[in-house]
Amino acid sequence: MMPQIRKDPVTGRWVVFSPERLRRPVQYQFNDGGAEGGPDPFLEGNESFTPPEVFAIRDPQSQPNGPGWKVRVVPNRYPALRVEGDLDKEGIGFYDKMSGIGAHEVVIETPLAGVELEQQSLEDVVNVLKACRARFTDLMKDLRFRYLLVFKNVGPLAGASIRHAHAQIIALPVVPITMKQKLDACRDYFIRKDRNLFEDMLREELKLGERMVCENAGFAVFCPFAARFPFEVCVMPKQQRADFYQCSDHELVLLADVLKKVLMAYRVGLECPNYNLILHTAPVRQARNEEWPSQESDFRWHIEILPRLTGVAGFEFGTGFFINPMMPEEAARFLKEVKIDD
Amino acid sequence: MMPQIRKDPVTGRWVVFSPERLRRPVQYQFNDGGAEGGPDPFLEGNESFTPPEVFAIRDPQSQPNGPGWKVRVVPNRYPALRVEGDLDKEGIGFYDKMSGIGAHEVVIETPLAGVELEQQSLEDVVNVLKACRARFTDLMKDLRFRYLLVFKNVGPLAGASIRHAHAQIIALPVVPITMKQKLDACRDYFIRKDRNLFEDMLREELKLGERMVCENAGFAVFCPFAARFPFEVCVMPKQQRADFYQCSDHELVLLADVLKKVLMAYRVGLECPNYNLILHTAPVRQARNEEWPSQESDFRWHIEILPRLTGVAGFEFGTGFFINPMMPEEAARFLKEVKIDD
Repeated sequence: MMPQIRKDPVTGRWVVFSPERLRRPVQYQFNDGGAEGGPDPFLEGNESFTPPEVFAIRDPQSQPNGPGWKVRVVPNRYPALRVEGDLDKEGIGFYDKMSGIGAHEVVIETPLAGVELEQQSLEDVVNVLKACRARFTDLMKDLRFRYLLVFKNVGPLAGASIRHAHAQIIALPVVPITMKQKLDACRDYFIRKDRNLFEDMLREELKLGERMVCENAGFAVFCPFAARFPFEVCVMPKQQRADFYQCSDHELVLLADVLKKVLMAYRVGLECPNYNLILHTAPVRQARNEEWPSQESDFRWHIEILPRLTGVAGFEFGTGFFINPMMPEEAARFLKEVKIDD
Repeated sequence: MMPQIRKDPVTGRWVVFSPERLRRPVQYQFNDGGAEGGPDPFLEGNESFTPPEVFAIRDPQSQPNGPGWKVRVVPNRYPALRVEGDLDKEGIGFYDKMSGIGAHEVVIETPLAGVELEQQSLEDVVNVLKACRARFTDLMKDLRFRYLLVFKNVGPLAGASIRHAHAQIIALPVVPITMKQKLDACRDYFIRKDRNLFEDMLREELKLGERMVCENAGFAVFCPFAARFPFEVCVMPKQQRADFYQCSDHELVLLADVLKKVLMAYRVGLECPNYNLILHTAPVRQARNEEWPSQESDFRWHIEILPRLTGVAGFEFGTGFFINPMMPEEAARFLKEVKIDD
């Protein structure tokens, strides 16, 4: 059955229904493409376990879909959305739906098993970021897509079903509601104050310093003022840029540097917590021109990292109400003081 | 330290910071008031383990805070919010905060251990609902409160830290963002169509039938068109009513009937899944007059039940993007066909 995308008439939230991902009745797990209990499909030498690669950074002597790579991007074996077909938007009675057109890819961050992103060399992390950027610039050419979601689930509590270090990219034919709300807020702020909301926030954080975790010439990492989770952090570029994909090579090096630092502080200080990493970037151009024409100056791309220290949460889905037992100032102090051996 | 409520400047989401709930560094669990590993504080005979009761349905011969009760409501031992004090709204630099004023209570649903809501008699379930209604009418008198949240976390995956059947009530000085969004959507729909959004939805569900799970004269239970989770259901009153607390005794009997039915279908068909139950009712009057004056006719109270069949989720917080491997039509058919021995 073709995946379907449905809109909740009250909240405006889009939900992807992807019945083929349900392999057996009791498996409701959000599958990131791995075979269960079998050999590691993302290991060097096991390239035939995945669909053919759509991008790779590899040894010039090596062959596509063979060994000799540093980063590999492949379609998800159990994609939530399908690349083939038309969008086919349709009202059914009171409701709205469209066909589940999109892309669902896996970024395999390393040929080795048991090596997490922060344990890789700076150069290797930069390669992972370059692979994401390359997929962005390719996927945005498809005019059916309106939003590109890059995220990383680490550990079972965060929804990962395979351990080998990887990220995921999903291309969506709709802009997710949370992103829409952020964009609306940024536009309203810009109209009211003629200033960028994220720029103002970053200036405040840099001035106060009490929620800062680390920074370099290009990026600041801080615990947000209204963090939902203990040790939640935000990674914000210091340069105004609405789109992640416009980062220069040099900026990716600076990003890799702070990512390694904060993830290493998690690893050492919180003992390898499960976490979700989400890259929030502006919608692709065909979507933003309609609703958010000023986005170039009013929105700034950024990364949220949400440690999953408990199996809790869920009721927060229904309410938008969060209780956090840890002040962000305290979390920032803790993360800043973690001693990391070089 | 006094709890603090902070507003996220981008999303408008309020987060409660409640540092006293963090008893030891590694305990980030959302605590529902139970002692860990100790005796069951909600058992009949253990009344001294909880703060003094604020409401109870008990034997006329019995004494408050002693045995002889059917339902008991007590303040949460580790409240996320404090009843005492002023709201003290304040801007700090770029940000907004207020003091963590509110109430946090526990509804102990039964004096017995190991008995879940659906296993109680109809009369006992009605008593639980009556206790919630009584607390509503009392808490709404406090003009500092703008929203009353009733929810139930069942099982560790849903965030429960004690097993004894209980619900929670939180009185908030702000309207949670998800509720605000629902109210805005209902108001806009009403202005545009001069009809109630939930009434239209319910009519469609009753007409189609394919997502219906059960119904009686007062309530309909269906799997929402854009359900986020497998087996998610919505319990909707057939009578237009914005407020849960306005339910008559007879309506509470009808509600208890469908709740027992659907939770029993979960128990038998899904083998006692963890779940979150959330009651969505209109904000208290002092809040709604300002922003949602037409709410009496445009919003309808309802209950969402979200089974937590996986430990997943979390990344959805950051995106508002959900993937559901199960069509609601299929989930409804499954729940409807569960055979329950009477």
